[in-house]
Amino acid sequence: MAEIATTPNPPYYAVIFTTVASNNSQGYAEMAERMVKLGQQQPGFLGIESARSDLGITVSYWKDLESIKNWKKNAEHLQAQKKGRSDWYAAYTTRIALVEKEYSFSVDG
Amino acid sequence: MAEIATTPNPPYYAVIFTTVASNNSQGYAEMAERMVKLGQQQPGFLGIESARSDLGITVSYWKDLESIKNWKKNAEHLQAQKKGRSDWYAAYTTRIALVEKEYSFSVDG
Repeated sequence: MAEIATTPNPPYYAVIFTTVASNNSQGYAEMAERMVKLGQQQPGFLGIESARSDLGITVSYWKDLESIKNWKKNAEHLQAQKKGRSDWYAAYTTRIALVEKEYSFSVDG
Repeated sequence: MAEIATTPNPPYYAVIFTTVASNNSQGYAEMAERMVKLGQQQPGFLGIESARSDLGITVSYWKDLESIKNWKKNAEHLQAQKKGRSDWYAAYTTRIALVEKEYSFSVDG
């Protein structure tokens, strides 16, 4: 996850997931890793970027709304979401957004 | 910036700015702080969220595309962008996205 996601030409969708962690991180790292692996296997998955300091921000990219809906209701993912609310997060906001433009810079050209 | 942004009901815009830092961070922290302050004063600014670990992810929220265009060409911001490419970033991607849905959770209710 330490790389900028390589995404196709817009339009495509972004799910911006911003979190404030609770004081209970038991089991969190394993679940987060598992959700990334599982998410990557879903139809319509395009990429993921993640960073954490005071806030956590994870942005996942998807082909369309249908792909996001299917992933949201994945059984194992639903369990993780429930555990997120009961244990790991003090607060979070999820935003579903249509990416209209994308531009990149790299020193490598 | 350690709080989840409080944004109005969608639709509104998000600028997702994902970065890989170079080995040169001289002057970066001061400029980043200055850009947040300056950005907050721009017409149409709605909020900002930022996190950094291997990747840096900053998401700023805006009323409309016009506000984003104006901020992009702000003179002081243009200087910062130039310095970002010459000094601070090995790579970055900027994505402009229309937020269509937003939902939040908080243990405080």
